[in-house]
Amino acid sequence: VSFSPLVAEPAARDRASVTRHAARSRRPARAGEFVLIETLRRRFASSSAFPAVLLGIGDDAALVRSPRREKLVLTVDACVEHVHFERAWLAPQDIGYRALMAAASDLAAMAAAPLAALTSWEVPLGMKERELDELARGQARAAQQLAVPMVGGNISRAQVLGLHTTLIGRAERPILRRGARAGDELWLIGNVGMAAAGLRVLEANCVLHGSRACVQSWRRPRALIDEARDLVGRARALIDVSDGLAADAEHLAAASGVRLVIDGAQLASTLPRSLRETARGLAVDPLQLALHGGEDYCLLATGPAERRPAVARVIGEVAAGRGVVLRGEGTRQKRVGRGFDHLRR
Amino acid sequence: VSFSPLVAEPAARDRASVTRHAARSRRPARAGEFVLIETLRRRFASSSAFPAVLLGIGDDAALVRSPRREKLVLTVDACVEHVHFERAWLAPQDIGYRALMAAASDLAAMAAAPLAALTSWEVPLGMKERELDELARGQARAAQQLAVPMVGGNISRAQVLGLHTTLIGRAERPILRRGARAGDELWLIGNVGMAAAGLRVLEANCVLHGSRACVQSWRRPRALIDEARDLVGRARALIDVSDGLAADAEHLAAASGVRLVIDGAQLASTLPRSLRETARGLAVDPLQLALHGGEDYCLLATGPAERRPAVARVIGEVAAGRGVVLRGEGTRQKRVGRGFDHLRR
Repeated sequence: VSFSPLVAEPAARDRASVTRHAARSRRPARAGEFVLIETLRRRFASSSAFPAVLLGIGDDAALVRSPRREKLVLTVDACVEHVHFERAWLAPQDIGYRALMAAASDLAAMAAAPLAALTSWEVPLGMKERELDELARGQARAAQQLAVPMVGGNISRAQVLGLHTTLIGRAERPILRRGARAGDELWLIGNVGMAAAGLRVLEANCVLHGSRACVQSWRRPRALIDEARDLVGRARALIDVSDGLAADAEHLAAASGVRLVIDGAQLASTLPRSLRETARGLAVDPLQLALHGGEDYCLLATGPAERRPAVARVIGEVAAGRGVVLRGEGTRQKRVGRGFDHLRR
Repeated sequence: VSFSPLVAEPAARDRASVTRHAARSRRPARAGEFVLIETLRRRFASSSAFPAVLLGIGDDAALVRSPRREKLVLTVDACVEHVHFERAWLAPQDIGYRALMAAASDLAAMAAAPLAALTSWEVPLGMKERELDELARGQARAAQQLAVPMVGGNISRAQVLGLHTTLIGRAERPILRRGARAGDELWLIGNVGMAAAGLRVLEANCVLHGSRACVQSWRRPRALIDEARDLVGRARALIDVSDGLAADAEHLAAASGVRLVIDGAQLASTLPRSLRETARGLAVDPLQLALHGGEDYCLLATGPAERRPAVARVIGEVAAGRGVVLRGEGTRQKRVGRGFDHLRR
């Protein structure tokens, strides 16, 4: 896999000439562009040191040893400017870090270990080499923490910044969304709601008591790979919480054909002080942030009580039926999922 | 792997609200978006029928059987509007088809067979559901021709259309760019120059004698997977021609530490009549289109004469030295590569 040259000239002003230049010949281009590509190769050079990597960046594709007894786990995810983030809220390093971690979280959601990563960037003309190097540094840092080699990439010019990350993982016993049974406990692994609180702080452009940890949760999420691997043989169903606890619980409930009952008091007891303080400053209900805020990349699992790992906190239970309900004081229950019915199988 | 909902509302006008909506909750959204996602699931439903696919689209990630004795071959490629194409030149089906084939060509360049594909789309707000379905149909058609299951995808809103395609392949004996030896023949497999001629016709918005085949070459390239597999045990070095024959020959020469001599007369003899006619209509030298036009996705290989397969045509030879030269009449030689020196290892 090789980094394609930036196909358009930085100075190109009209689109036709950009396309013309790109599509007709994709000429070996300005030194600056090659310097950049070389910088990226260097940033990811350590990938070749992984025993599984037979050939890293530099040829037409990368070569990786097939895992022997394990299944391949494949996923792709995107982080696009103005859709998933604003550049004012993240340093380039954060953007690179976040994009890789968010994609890796899909591996955690299958209880898989990362095997290799690929990255494809759309880069706006105005972005500086230094910023791109920071972006690559952020990805390299996340890759290091995940112990995954970045074996390939692609760079294209574009109007806004977009990072598309592919993760190839391996798992002997993957845990799917289906498999939850009535009587299972509902487990939360990691914190939920903090990223949403952090994003609101960034949007409001304010500093609140306790908000730093929340902002950091949004800027630097962590894919819970090791925690998920510890669920193998314990959990019956698993999903990562990227779209919000209620929405992702709906996905798990639908795939398993069960009802998930979230206990409001149990969920509230898991919320860290920094989230409660930040929510107070924002004048919002922390439970609402926990239920409907996304991008925490924590894990939601179900399993029998006797197999619950230490890292899991009980936030409810699995019942017969369908959908997701929030159990409040007494026996009051209210539907919290939001109309995923037509996705149910 | 699941198709993420389109995170922004089609009606959203200001960026902040788009991000707000997306990042805070990525709510389960309008019926129209789910209809689209369901359409895509259906388009790629046949992927689950592949024996290697243990779990297709619908969970957090796809599960694919690891190849036993073969290596994994990994690559990612992008097709971005205004950079790689204009929508005026391609029907949505062509765009989808082309994006997958262009990425698959990197597998051909390693003599690998496709195992699975993933696709990540940036979709502009104005694009209609019908057009997106056509895009998916084009990808499904290419996937069918390549016999590769599309096991996952992602959709994000964006300002321009962009398709990022990951191909996972398998190869027992991959052929790299390095390995060419002085004395080898230089082989061309497939046609070169036609896509560049076709693109010029589209840019000029004209119809020329013979131009239809050229335009079709650009719109519907074919990754030469089978032809490349036939080179195993025959070719010593291999690359696909995406950036133009001269530029990609430079890559191969640099990786192998040799000089490639392209014989002008031999190369000219491979040019199809439709290319020569179209070039005449465009008033350009067909040999220049062959040398410097990209996106044909044909193959360039080197190997000993006695192992040359029937599908390969000799267009020159490998010599000691470095760089790429064009041999004209008599002994006249001229450098045709364009300054890849700083990429040399």
